[in-house]
Amino acid sequence: MRILVVGASGTVGRAAVGELSRRHEVIRAGRSSGDVTVDVMKEDAVKAMFERLGMLDAVVACAGHVHFGPLAGMTPAQFRKGLDDKLMGQINLVLIGLQHVKDGGSFTLTSGILDRDPVRAGANAAAVNGAIGGFVRGAAIDMPRGIRINAVSPGLLEESAQKYDGFFPGHETVSSARVGLAYAKSVEGGLTGQVISVG
Amino acid sequence: MRILVVGASGTVGRAAVGELSRRHEVIRAGRSSGDVTVDVMKEDAVKAMFERLGMLDAVVACAGHVHFGPLAGMTPAQFRKGLDDKLMGQINLVLIGLQHVKDGGSFTLTSGILDRDPVRAGANAAAVNGAIGGFVRGAAIDMPRGIRINAVSPGLLEESAQKYDGFFPGHETVSSARVGLAYAKSVEGGLTGQVISVG
Repeated sequence: MRILVVGASGTVGRAAVGELSRRHEVIRAGRSSGDVTVDVMKEDAVKAMFERLGMLDAVVACAGHVHFGPLAGMTPAQFRKGLDDKLMGQINLVLIGLQHVKDGGSFTLTSGILDRDPVRAGANAAAVNGAIGGFVRGAAIDMPRGIRINAVSPGLLEESAQKYDGFFPGHETVSSARVGLAYAKSVEGGLTGQVISVG
Repeated sequence: MRILVVGASGTVGRAAVGELSRRHEVIRAGRSSGDVTVDVMKEDAVKAMFERLGMLDAVVACAGHVHFGPLAGMTPAQFRKGLDDKLMGQINLVLIGLQHVKDGGSFTLTSGILDRDPVRAGANAAAVNGAIGGFVRGAAIDMPRGIRINAVSPGLLEESAQKYDGFFPGHETVSSARVGLAYAKSVEGGLTGQVISVG
C-alpha cells in the first residue's frame, strides 16, 4: 500500500511508521520535516499536499497538540487551541483528503487515553479525544466508496513518560511496538468506526 | 436550588425546565427569549449574564446547533459550525461560569445520541457529542470546590421526530418526561463525570 503518515516524526508517528514501513510505502509528512511538509491547520496547505501526492491507499494522522492546564482558569481561547490543532487538523485531513483516497482505502486518526482514563489538567485533551472517537463512529457509516475510518487511542507511551512526569500518576506505559500494531490493525484490517485502544 | 437553564425554549430545554421547575427556581435563558437573553458563542455576553445573575446552584446547558450533511462534500467551515455553536457555546458556559457556581454546585451539558448510535449525515453531531462526553469525564476530576459536571445524552425526542423525519431510521423516540428526569438526576443527584443516556 501507499500510505501517508502525517505527524510522522512525533512519538506516536514514529511508532506508526515503524510498523507500517515494514510492508508498505510510507510517505512521511510533518510540520517542519519529512518527505512532505504541511501545516494541517491550513486548508490550502492540506489541499496542495494531497494534489501533489496523488491517490493513496491510506492516510494516517498522528499530528496535533492540545492545551494542558487546570480547568479553573482555563480560557475559551486556550480550549480552542486543542480544537484548532489536534481536532481540526485531523478533520481537515479527512474532509479534504477523502477524494484522494482510493476505493476501499482508509483513514486512521489519533485520539488518546484521556477521555477514558482522565488526569488532572487534561479536560481539553479529553474533549478532543472524545470528539475524534465520536467523529470516526459517525463518519464510518457515511463514507463513500468503501473507505474505512478508525482512531487509535494510545495510552502514555514509554518514550513520553519522562516528558509528562507527574501528569499521569499511576498510568501504565505502552510500548511503541504495541501502538504501531494498532495502526496496522486499522490500516490493514477490516475494522471501521472503531476506537482502537492501546493501554 | 437556583438553576440557570440555557436554551430553555428548545425541545430539550423545555424538557429540563419542565422537570426542574417543579422543585426549584429556574432562570430561563435563550438566544432570543427567556428571563435573560444570551448568545453563548460570545464570551462577553456569557460573562455579562453570569455577573448579572449572581451565584447559582446549577447551570444546565441545552443550547447548540450542529451541521447535518453528508461527509463527502462537507467543508471544514461547515464542520466548524458545530464546534463553534454546540461545543464552544457549552464550554464557554463552564469555563466562564465556574466562578459563579456555588460550592458543591453542578454543570449539566447536553450531548446527544449520534456518537453512540450514528446516522448518515451526522458525523459533525457525533464529533460534537463525543467532545462533550470526553470533556465532562476529563473536567469532573479537575473541578474546584466540589462542583460536579455531567452530560445528558438524549435520543430522538418524540416532539422532534417529525422535524427529523427520515434522518433517524429505526430510532426509538424518547419522551420529554424521561429526558427531564435525566437532568434532575444530574442536578439533584451525586453523579459526576457521567454521560447520562436516555434512549
